[in-house]
Amino acid sequence: MDATLKKKLDIGFNPRNIVVVGDKGPNYNWLKSSAEYPGGPTYSVQLDENEIPGIEELGIKNFKSLHDIPEDEIDYVIIAVPRRIVPFILKDCIEKKVTLVACYTAGFAETHEEEGIQLSETIINMCKEADLAMVGPNCLCISNPKVGLLSNTSQRTGPGGFVGVLSMSGTHTGTMISALTAHGMPISKSVSMGNSLSIEQSDWLEYLGEDEETKIICMYLEGVRNGRQFYDSLKKVAAKKPVVILKGGQTADGARAATSHTASLASPFAIWSGMFQQTGAIGVNSTDEIIDVAKVLTMAKPVSGNRLGVIASTGGQSVLVSDASAKHDLTVPALEESSYEKLRELFTLTGNSYRNPLDVTGVLNTAEEGDMMLNVLADDPNIDIIAMEVGDFTQRRNDPDFYDNMIKNFQSIKENSDKPFIVVQTGMEDVVLKTRETLKEKGIPSIYSFLRGTQALGRAKDYYTAQAEINS
Amino acid sequence: MDATLKKKLDIGFNPRNIVVVGDKGPNYNWLKSSAEYPGGPTYSVQLDENEIPGIEELGIKNFKSLHDIPEDEIDYVIIAVPRRIVPFILKDCIEKKVTLVACYTAGFAETHEEEGIQLSETIINMCKEADLAMVGPNCLCISNPKVGLLSNTSQRTGPGGFVGVLSMSGTHTGTMISALTAHGMPISKSVSMGNSLSIEQSDWLEYLGEDEETKIICMYLEGVRNGRQFYDSLKKVAAKKPVVILKGGQTADGARAATSHTASLASPFAIWSGMFQQTGAIGVNSTDEIIDVAKVLTMAKPVSGNRLGVIASTGGQSVLVSDASAKHDLTVPALEESSYEKLRELFTLTGNSYRNPLDVTGVLNTAEEGDMMLNVLADDPNIDIIAMEVGDFTQRRNDPDFYDNMIKNFQSIKENSDKPFIVVQTGMEDVVLKTRETLKEKGIPSIYSFLRGTQALGRAKDYYTAQAEINS
Repeated sequence: MDATLKKKLDIGFNPRNIVVVGDKGPNYNWLKSSAEYPGGPTYSVQLDENEIPGIEELGIKNFKSLHDIPEDEIDYVIIAVPRRIVPFILKDCIEKKVTLVACYTAGFAETHEEEGIQLSETIINMCKEADLAMVGPNCLCISNPKVGLLSNTSQRTGPGGFVGVLSMSGTHTGTMISALTAHGMPISKSVSMGNSLSIEQSDWLEYLGEDEETKIICMYLEGVRNGRQFYDSLKKVAAKKPVVILKGGQTADGARAATSHTASLASPFAIWSGMFQQTGAIGVNSTDEIIDVAKVLTMAKPVSGNRLGVIASTGGQSVLVSDASAKHDLTVPALEESSYEKLRELFTLTGNSYRNPLDVTGVLNTAEEGDMMLNVLADDPNIDIIAMEVGDFTQRRNDPDFYDNMIKNFQSIKENSDKPFIVVQTGMEDVVLKTRETLKEKGIPSIYSFLRGTQALGRAKDYYTAQAEINS
Repeated sequence: MDATLKKKLDIGFNPRNIVVVGDKGPNYNWLKSSAEYPGGPTYSVQLDENEIPGIEELGIKNFKSLHDIPEDEIDYVIIAVPRRIVPFILKDCIEKKVTLVACYTAGFAETHEEEGIQLSETIINMCKEADLAMVGPNCLCISNPKVGLLSNTSQRTGPGGFVGVLSMSGTHTGTMISALTAHGMPISKSVSMGNSLSIEQSDWLEYLGEDEETKIICMYLEGVRNGRQFYDSLKKVAAKKPVVILKGGQTADGARAATSHTASLASPFAIWSGMFQQTGAIGVNSTDEIIDVAKVLTMAKPVSGNRLGVIASTGGQSVLVSDASAKHDLTVPALEESSYEKLRELFTLTGNSYRNPLDVTGVLNTAEEGDMMLNVLADDPNIDIIAMEVGDFTQRRNDPDFYDNMIKNFQSIKENSDKPFIVVQTGMEDVVLKTRETLKEKGIPSIYSFLRGTQALGRAKDYYTAQAEINS
């Protein structure tokens, strides 16, 4: 990417000062989320006399104009003024040589009204002529939690994460940040790209592609203005790290909603699908799927084959996991005879099936037995991936340490086997939530339901297969 | 169905006494779940001297043989002995003229071992010759919560529900019972059918078809022995009430697992799909989907068209719900000009899209505004179904009663409009769970995610369309 832009973004993600223009009470989202920024002072620019007392209560100094701010260089400005005022603020930013501007204000080309469209053109031209780097408009700006740069008050500063988030929707930015963090995958940097009038999607992609902290990129996209350029960037970045993309506007109704949202133009989804395949990017269909796929890619070993070994809690689950696997291009094959010899000790007396899936109704009574089964699958040459169902473990009362020891077994198989291992969670949501917290602490990937688990494994397999082909 | 069998099942679901043969400690599932049965005494038959003290501690009288039990007529016997002993117990049941027998024991044809297959044949022949009605084997028996007949200790007696559950898997029986009840759809009667060697799936289906308390039937099936008979029963019952069917063993791997589970033989899934279409039954792909579809069918008005009016929390969600709708054969059409005239009051100032979906970012600040939007959709002739997204309502701080008043608006639209109305829940699971409880209390159907919501609405639309065709 362009070296000058890269330098600007480096500064914008680590600003020495922040200026918020036009934030309104009672929430003052931008001022409140920047008030405690540890990297330098936060200033306010506000003309409305009624707002100034509220702003000063936050301990933030207010000025009537950007020009009055006592800094020679302003690194990052957030604009939250009515749309007609935006060009005037941009003019000030250009004169004051601001490094990065983020424009929260919406109401441009996405309105399909004459005034919005004209304002959109004005902004594009101003940025181009002055070489001004702008995030948005119509966006929730950027965040870099590690340095304390946040994009809303509910976001938390953290020790630094590894997931980069790029999104054309503020909601999906927020959903991805909250959900990825809650599932044990904290954020390196996030960008709510909005209408992307100045800095394009391909610029952001390349920037996070070069960012060392970012190990995986999760995107929500509605459209791109320069398809060829985006394709080239995607190809370059996807070869370096996984890029997971949820494309909004796949259908006619969805495309119509997208053009009202970010003024994105429709292009047939088949073109996008083709682009994902050719570049090795990972296309998904929901924000839930983003979480699942990111989890398998970042918490499990690489998926190099499609043969699944399953420990299912019952025979009924064995049937459904086999169906779900086949739907996502995985198989649940027979094991080696030597594996059956080991398993027969446990299984012959009960009549359960242990062909694969291993149906453990009434069989798995001690954690040692669980460990043995996991290791049989880890050692079996017919198996590429290991999945174990976890419902309500605590029902097994014969061994009070069963649950804790099974978690240890999971850690051991995750650390000692080269085969990817996931836990599939089933059952009532409150139990699922509780168990997931324990598994998260140990870095063990857990996915809700066999349908979602096998879907995520299928996507991961496709990703690693594509990467192997690209690199061969 | 056969009148004699119907009478036997009536007695079995309302037994005047229960006998449990061979239950083992420390859990004593069958004895514990029957100990408090209010409809009559529970007895135990147990030979193992070590078990007898534990059984007597439960306040249950033990006998060494069925013949010793001091009842002229025994209504319901649960068998939980090793498989080789089953024929001896059946012989006693026949001699004692037991009305209904349920056999928990597994290890028959599903093992594909000589001994299991032979025992299976023996059981079939004994039942046939003596005209003995048997549930299972390899099952979790039956329940009728209203009268206190339960099939496991975690199940609760209730005031009586309206969902009939039929399942070839004990796990899926349990999952359906717990999840349906937790989602506000309590059980009328449940049958874990197991291998269905004596009473066939079509018998159960017809029985629940005639059961007045049962308003909807949810099934998990792996296969049926008599396809034609099942088809006829399904056609008859599906014309009277919705029958939702999850077919396990749709794929080659799944079919192999199914034959290890209940000895069901594979038949191509296309045949099943065709049967669902011809009979008007509703085929689904997961237990989660059973819950969603049952909720729309029992809590919302009939879905008579496919034109969805959506209130989405943001523009990003508007795009995804439009995509999700199109995937499930629904559309999100433009509204009437008169509707836009009403909506314009709220929306013009902000630049949000209100074409449909209504993107309410920053617009929906009072419950009155929410009520107005719901009523615009209810009155608009271009709209057949209304869906509103609910994320974290409590963030709207300007009106402290917003949440409570919106719930009242939901009740009002549910009661006063003929159009089906659902709430689509998004966001973090803990918030989803909490909000769902409130909605459940008010009988408002809430479904997690736009993908699942539109899928359930699509299935419901197909169901009502098929019924209209069948009845025309």
